[in-house]
Amino acid sequence: MKVIKIGGNIIDDSVKLDSFLKDFATLEGAKILVHGGGKIASEIGRKLDIEPKMFQGRRITDEATLDLVTMVYAGLINKNIVAALQSFNCNAIGLSGADANILTAAKRPVKEVDFGFVGDLNNNSVNLKSLQLLLNAGIILVVNPITHDGNGTLLNTNADTIASVMAVALSKIFDVELIYCFEKKGVLENIEDEHSLIKVISNSNYHQLKLDGIIADGMIPKIDNAFDAIRNGVKKVRIMDAMELKSLNKGESVGTEIV
Amino acid sequence: MKVIKIGGNIIDDSVKLDSFLKDFATLEGAKILVHGGGKIASEIGRKLDIEPKMFQGRRITDEATLDLVTMVYAGLINKNIVAALQSFNCNAIGLSGADANILTAAKRPVKEVDFGFVGDLNNNSVNLKSLQLLLNAGIILVVNPITHDGNGTLLNTNADTIASVMAVALSKIFDVELIYCFEKKGVLENIEDEHSLIKVISNSNYHQLKLDGIIADGMIPKIDNAFDAIRNGVKKVRIMDAMELKSLNKGESVGTEIV
Repeated sequence: MKVIKIGGNIIDDSVKLDSFLKDFATLEGAKILVHGGGKIASEIGRKLDIEPKMFQGRRITDEATLDLVTMVYAGLINKNIVAALQSFNCNAIGLSGADANILTAAKRPVKEVDFGFVGDLNNNSVNLKSLQLLLNAGIILVVNPITHDGNGTLLNTNADTIASVMAVALSKIFDVELIYCFEKKGVLENIEDEHSLIKVISNSNYHQLKLDGIIADGMIPKIDNAFDAIRNGVKKVRIMDAMELKSLNKGESVGTEIV
Repeated sequence: MKVIKIGGNIIDDSVKLDSFLKDFATLEGAKILVHGGGKIASEIGRKLDIEPKMFQGRRITDEATLDLVTMVYAGLINKNIVAALQSFNCNAIGLSGADANILTAAKRPVKEVDFGFVGDLNNNSVNLKSLQLLLNAGIILVVNPITHDGNGTLLNTNADTIASVMAVALSKIFDVELIYCFEKKGVLENIEDEHSLIKVISNSNYHQLKLDGIIADGMIPKIDNAFDAIRNGVKKVRIMDAMELKSLNKGESVGTEIV
């Protein structure tokens, strides 16, 4: 089965998103789509006088922001994706972590920064029984980054991490491929050059790629998560262009494989 | 099984809503909660410069309003209800009509008024297979009033009608009680007097109650829907105070029964 994450840049572009979802609908086998937020939340937030507050690239989620992301991620984005997939004959169901209790998170402890209503996942976060019920019935899951703590509080959670934690948990019962889709061909040697794709990242070249500064910044946690996922049972992790999803049905090698 | 609708006045009052959900969680048997919107959508809409437009008590749903109600109903309200129910050990799942394709609607045809993205339900709207899968697994459904047309468009739909159409469809496979919860004891002879409860409305007294003006305005379509539901297989329709839900477990007669 496939766990596929799409990032904000695709969600913000309705033409690309539509094309991606059309391709996603044709992918064979069981599948889960995990989506993030995009700029829409910040735009709507600005109109509601909720200024985005970030710390090291992560949103600080006060109460007003939690309401905002719950509306935008779990409502607007999630339901429009589900409706689009239904129109492509893909029987999707949109889920927050609270729905059927699929993902329980813990509110991040306050240390130097209070991230507010941000949830962290752990090894016991995933409710396999609920996921199996839906997947075995042939239903396609569309998971948004709102989780809950089991005590009635919703929590804003990193979508990359959700994809990875779900992939690991599901690898107990399925062969799982975890795929991160974004707007580049994959991990590039030179971020300006789409032809400089790194086809494979393994333990043997990852260290050097970091030393050379080829893999840096936001890509490092992504790759680290990927290696974690593989160590914990995921068969394959792929980072690829959201517009090339169709190639997966043809068995073509596409994007960067982390092995 | 029970299909229970709660109205906006309960949703707007977080203390009442919490108390209602705690009681709902204890109700025995399979159950579905259908919720409407409340004033929150109008309040957030005003901040977003979306002025509520109504015609004969129904919201006109232009594109901006559709986004607004999708955010508020399917996101904010639905996910907070689901998270609260989970905290009361009630394994709930929040669903729009697009999710698992449970409710397909048709965009209301433009006649004297263009209602915009408003969906009407019919006899084929309900996907029993999806509902059965979830209900048979012991999952509690929390349905919001956003449906879809099957072609990728979300539609704003009357929650009373959703409750009634779902109850009728489910009565093919379950004994269904349809319950409308609101802030009064039931249908009252005198709306100012909570002691003037009409315990039973049947074909034999409904006509007279309308003639006498005791049942008027917004209550008439509710009662008409109730009679429709009974004619189409629903065992019982009850209109009652959301704060008296617990009485149902004790088998007490509560609210107004339509028979």
